[in-house]
Amino acid sequence: MTEYYEDIALHQRRRLGPHLLTGKEIRDFAGSWDPLPLHTDPGYAESSGQGAVIASGFHLLAICQKLMIEQNPMAVVIGLGLDEVRFLAPGRPGDRLTVEIEAISKRQSRSRPEAGIVSHSLRLFNQNEEVVLSYKGTGMIAKRNRWE
Amino acid sequence: MTEYYEDIALHQRRRLGPHLLTGKEIRDFAGSWDPLPLHTDPGYAESSGQGAVIASGFHLLAICQKLMIEQNPMAVVIGLGLDEVRFLAPGRPGDRLTVEIEAISKRQSRSRPEAGIVSHSLRLFNQNEEVVLSYKGTGMIAKRNRWE
Repeated sequence: MTEYYEDIALHQRRRLGPHLLTGKEIRDFAGSWDPLPLHTDPGYAESSGQGAVIASGFHLLAICQKLMIEQNPMAVVIGLGLDEVRFLAPGRPGDRLTVEIEAISKRQSRSRPEAGIVSHSLRLFNQNEEVVLSYKGTGMIAKRNRWE
Repeated sequence: MTEYYEDIALHQRRRLGPHLLTGKEIRDFAGSWDPLPLHTDPGYAESSGQGAVIASGFHLLAICQKLMIEQNPMAVVIGLGLDEVRFLAPGRPGDRLTVEIEAISKRQSRSRPEAGIVSHSLRLFNQNEEVVLSYKGTGMIAKRNRWE
């Protein structure tokens, strides 16, 4: 069920997923958007000591967004920004990725009475519970009762 | 030509691009990674007052990365993070996007003698010279003379 501004409870953690990362998905995403050999070329990745291609950080961010839209839908008016994006461990073929999401702040929008500004902390984990990626995302979220 | 750590000059601005944004590319990226109706559904986008679909912020980040890898290649060891990512204006079908990139800091890596840590400021512009997206990116960059 879509969460509106009033529904968002601070400091409750939810786990979303899994997303199963494949070598093909890593190579396809990177081939379009981040064509470094470490992401696209299995031979290069092996010779560099990584063993296999590792996922683009932009791909890992996109996986978090996909899981959030599909499994924790909110009445997003618009995304405003991301902060403290940290690529902490490689995403590898065969990884089973899950996202932990926690609302960390909410306030009334100053420009739009019918919406609020909400920030979430997100952490992407692999199957060994290593944090692969962490960041904070901020967006404008509509109120349920827009015209109260 | 690939830039190594020693080659990176601070505070020199370069413009990369253009990338021509299409409605199909907006819908395809968002359909895979950010399936909000504002990005995927032309009818919804029209009724919301946007006129046409607008690009996912994650798509705009990916466009910056693609232009940087293709037109300003660096000897990237690994990406470390992004800071202060701000989605400032919509990316729309037909936009002609360019990226301004500027190295804003560089220092020796503490863990790896053969590499340095470099931060860049990036701004994505549309054809009207409006800033669509801005952020800072930090990565580890190999030295040309790794074993000097």
